[in-house]
Parts: sequence; structure tokens; C-alpha cells
Amino acid sequence: MSLKVSDIGEKELIRYIIANSRSITPDDTAITKLNSTNLISTCDMLIQSRHFPENMSYFNMGFKAVTVNVSDLAAMGAEPLGFLLAIALPKDLKLDSFKEIIEGVLNACNYYQIPLIGGDTNEASEIIISGTALGITDKPLMKDTYNIGDLIAVTGDIGLAALGFELDSFDNIYIKQALKPEARIKEGLILRDFATSATDITDGLASELYEIKKDGFGFMIHEELLGISDEYKSLAEKFNLNYLDLVLHVGEDFELLFTISGDDLEKLPIDYKVIGEVTDSDVIELTLENGFVERIENKGYEHYVSE
Amino acid sequence: MSLKVSDIGEKELIRYIIANSRSITPDDTAITKLNSTNLISTCDMLIQSRHFPENMSYFNMGFKAVTVNVSDLAAMGAEPLGFLLAIALPKDLKLDSFKEIIEGVLNACNYYQIPLIGGDTNEASEIIISGTALGITDKPLMKDTYNIGDLIAVTGDIGLAALGFELDSFDNIYIKQALKPEARIKEGLILRDFATSATDITDGLASELYEIKKDGFGFMIHEELLGISDEYKSLAEKFNLNYLDLVLHVGEDFELLFTISGDDLEKLPIDYKVIGEVTDSDVIELTLENGFVERIENKGYEHYVSE
Repeated sequence: MSLKVSDIGEKELIRYIIANSRSITPDDTAITKLNSTNLISTCDMLIQSRHFPENMSYFNMGFKAVTVNVSDLAAMGAEPLGFLLAIALPKDLKLDSFKEIIEGVLNACNYYQIPLIGGDTNEASEIIISGTALGITDKPLMKDTYNIGDLIAVTGDIGLAALGFELDSFDNIYIKQALKPEARIKEGLILRDFATSATDITDGLASELYEIKKDGFGFMIHEELLGISDEYKSLAEKFNLNYLDLVLHVGEDFELLFTISGDDLEKLPIDYKVIGEVTDSDVIELTLENGFVERIENKGYEHYVSE
Repeated sequence: MSLKVSDIGEKELIRYIIANSRSITPDDTAITKLNSTNLISTCDMLIQSRHFPENMSYFNMGFKAVTVNVSDLAAMGAEPLGFLLAIALPKDLKLDSFKEIIEGVLNACNYYQIPLIGGDTNEASEIIISGTALGITDKPLMKDTYNIGDLIAVTGDIGLAALGFELDSFDNIYIKQALKPEARIKEGLILRDFATSATDITDGLASELYEIKKDGFGFMIHEELLGISDEYKSLAEKFNLNYLDLVLHVGEDFELLFTISGDDLEKLPIDYKVIGEVTDSDVIELTLENGFVERIENKGYEHYVSE
């Protein structure tokens, strides 16, 4: 009985690739020195059956394909340079649906000010969109260059999309975030001069904290600072879901998670929410609203558990 | 009855994207001015059921995914800068098979001296590999900047892979070319200083000639200069195939098709074969071995017809 890729999981497959390549920087994107600046490049592939909820419009599929890639540029504090689109379509897809996907892509490119510069079309059994985003920056914002005592902050509320995926008949902020998330490209550019580190939240806050953790450092997150609304908690309960699991372990937020000194935070000219601090505990913990402290588990997108 | 994408075909879908985007240069790759140089970027997606013959090894799948993208860099005369790999795998794929694909990718990256700088893994119903190749050049080699009187040449024999796809139980130069084609990256770099134009042959010589044709210009190709061997002709006949269709209308050659002045050709330090010349006829023609001249039809990969 030989091992299958599903026995290993995606993160391990990526680790295998990184271990065998001398040139991969394990940060949010690739960084390539180019004369006096740095070329930032990243690629992400979206598979219809995995990444597009049933009720997602063709327009929003195209929009999201750009968002997920531009979000990685934002996490590096990069200025957008160009976007390439490789798309595979089922042969019986309506031409109008294809045009809607492209409209979503072009709309997003315009919104993020990233020109669509290249592409490729193909045929497959479902819609598959692979995007590559290119950017430049003199000063790439890495994901693990924080200091003990730094504050941990996010650029917006998290957990909204996670709840949105569970609701299918309402039009509300949760559904909106699930169907049309946005990358924080402007915030990333500003954070370049203020933050000590940054990454984007795609697989859930918990997963990202484990991605950025270094030996000898720890993170303490405070539930009361997450600002989870009563409406959120009661909707979660209504659907028999654990609200903390939704907020921490699902993802698709595309908010930036960054660290910053207290002094620099005072001058930061973007919306943000402080949610915790960097410690020397060597563990990742959550102080609950009731005062108890518990370990945050390394559960991401694939391991969401409902109670 | 609404139109489906299969009614339109891939080239039309690409034309739709180009028509709606202000930033796409319709050449082999995207060209983005970057300080004093040009960033060259291209992406190509390979779908298992469409691009990988039954008898292709996992190693060669990985190798080809790099080749098809590096070939576009070669066509622009670009120096390789980096390669990004987005790959989707069926969940029951053996881990060893995944490792062989990666080995093929890394082997190709090493062969073409293009570092693997980033990637993404995913799950889909078949193997899908989307690669992005990045390069730089001060002087991009465009595909349609030829002059009347230029000679037309190729960097190697064409039609080999087309025949190889029809043969499944021999180990010969045709099978080799079908299963492990190589990009002409070194030749592309040299051609930068000699050729007036260049492109790579992926959908067949005929298809590429139509891609590069401008109003007021024509191409005359000479069958005797194509150098089709007797062995090739008899193998084609054995399988009831038209050898000229195989050579002109199938592709997967990855040789460079370039134009050059007679004077510059004398000094060109790479292997090449002159196959014709640029005229003012405004048509694309072939002079057969028997002296007759016929129009070359615009049939590419999807329209291969056997006699």
C-alpha cells in the first residue's frame, strides 16, 4: 500500500518542493533581486469545486482569482506591476459565463490598479483559474521579522467569510465577505513603513500564526479584542457552530496580519484592530473573554470542526 | 440555444481577453518596462488529459511544464529569471508520482538555468500544471518585425513530435521529441543580436506563420528545405497519415521560428535550417518538391486531418 498525496496534505507537499529547491524563500511570495529593487511574484490556483461556493457568480470567481494573488503582494508591501491569467473551462460552459468571469478579472485588475498583461486559455472538466501577480518593492515586508513586545494587529474583522460560507440565503456582511473578499493592497503599501512584519490571512488566523512563528517567540491573542459581535455568536449558535472555530480556523479573510511597535502604531494611518502581542512564551495562546488562557491549536482550513 | 465556449475555440477566447484589456501585448509573452530593462512574463497551463500522452512519465510531465513556458522566454530572447509552479493533483495520486513530477520540474529548471522561486499545490480531478516563467531583456525579440527579403529559418527539425504522438511502441527520435521536447533558450539569447523577429513553434509551423503575418507581407516556404526524411515519409504512410499535415499542422516542436537578413545569417553561431523567405505576396505558400506552389492553410493543432 503506497502513500497517496491525500495522506500527506497540501502543506507537506509544498514543504517537499521547498526542501528540494535552493531558490524558494518561504515567505508569502518569491523575492527576486532586480537591479536596485525587488521583483515580487506569486501564483495561486483556484479550483471551482474547492474554492467557489455554489452561489458564487461567474463575475466573483474572476474577481477572487485576482484577489487571492494580489493579497500576497499586499502582504509583502509590494506595488502591483502586472497580472497573468491562465484559465481552463469546461467545453459546455456558456460563452456569456466566460465573459462574466473575464469581466470579474478585469474589474478586479482595475480596482487593484494591476494591469492584466498576459494569459492562456484551456479546456478542463471544471473551471480552473491560475493567476500570477507581479509586484515591485525596495523593502519587502517579511512575515517573521517581529520583535518581542510588538503588538499584533489586523486590518479588519476576521471570521466573516467563514460564517458566510455556512449561510446561503441571506445577503449580509458575512455572505459578501465569502463571495467577494478584497485584498488590502493600499494598506500593505502603507504598512511597509510602519510594520515590523506582515502576512495575509487565508487559512485562518491560527494557521497563519503557526506559519510565522519562530523558536523562542510566542503570541498572545485576546478574545475581547477580536470584537466578535453578538450577532455573529448567535448566528453561529443557530447553525450549531463554534464561533471561535469559525473566527480562528477557517480563513478566507484576506485581511493583513501585522506586527508593529506601540510607538509606530500611534502614527499608523490605516484602519486596524490590535488583537494581541508578541511574547517570549514560545507558544501561541488565546485569553478567552472569561479570563482563561488556552493554547490555540494548529487547525486550518482543512480541519474545521463543529461542536 | 446559447453559445458555448467550445463553439468559439481557444484562440477566439484569448482574442476576447486581449480586446478587453488595454495592457496585453499580443506577442509571445508580456513585456513590462522596468527601469532600464524589460520584464518578460508568460504563463501556460497543461492539462493531463490534453497535453500529456498516455505513455508520458510523471518526470516528463514536470519537465514539459517548464519547457512550454521557457520556450516563450526563448522566443523573446529573454534571460531566465525565475519559474513559479502551481500544480493540482488528484487525491489518490501516489506520493511517489508527485515526487517524480517535481523531480522533472527541478531537473528542467536546472537544465534551463531558471530557478524555481515559488509555487502552490491544490487538488483537482486530474493533474494540472500551471507554470509562470519570468525573464529579462534589454531588447525583446518580437514576432512580427521582419522585412521583405529576410530569410525564414528554424532552429531544428519540425514535425518530429507530431509523428511521435502517433507511434506508441518505439523508442526513437519522434517519440523522444513528443515526450521530452526542449526549449531553445540559449539559441533565443543569441538570436537577439542577429534575428529580425522570432517566435516558438507550438501549434505547428502553419499556425505560427498565420500568427506572425502582417498585411502586405507573405511567406514562401520550400518543401525541399524542410528536409523531411524518407524514414519520416514512410512511417507517416505506414500509419495512413499525410506527412505534410504532420510537419505543418500539429506542432509541439518548441523550435524557434525566426527571420534574418542573408548577411546576418552568415555570422549566426547556432544550428539552424533556412526554410523560406519573407515576400510581399500577402499570402502564405509552400513550394512543393515537385515544383507546384500551394497555399498553406491556417490549420493548427485542433484541426489535424489525416488522409
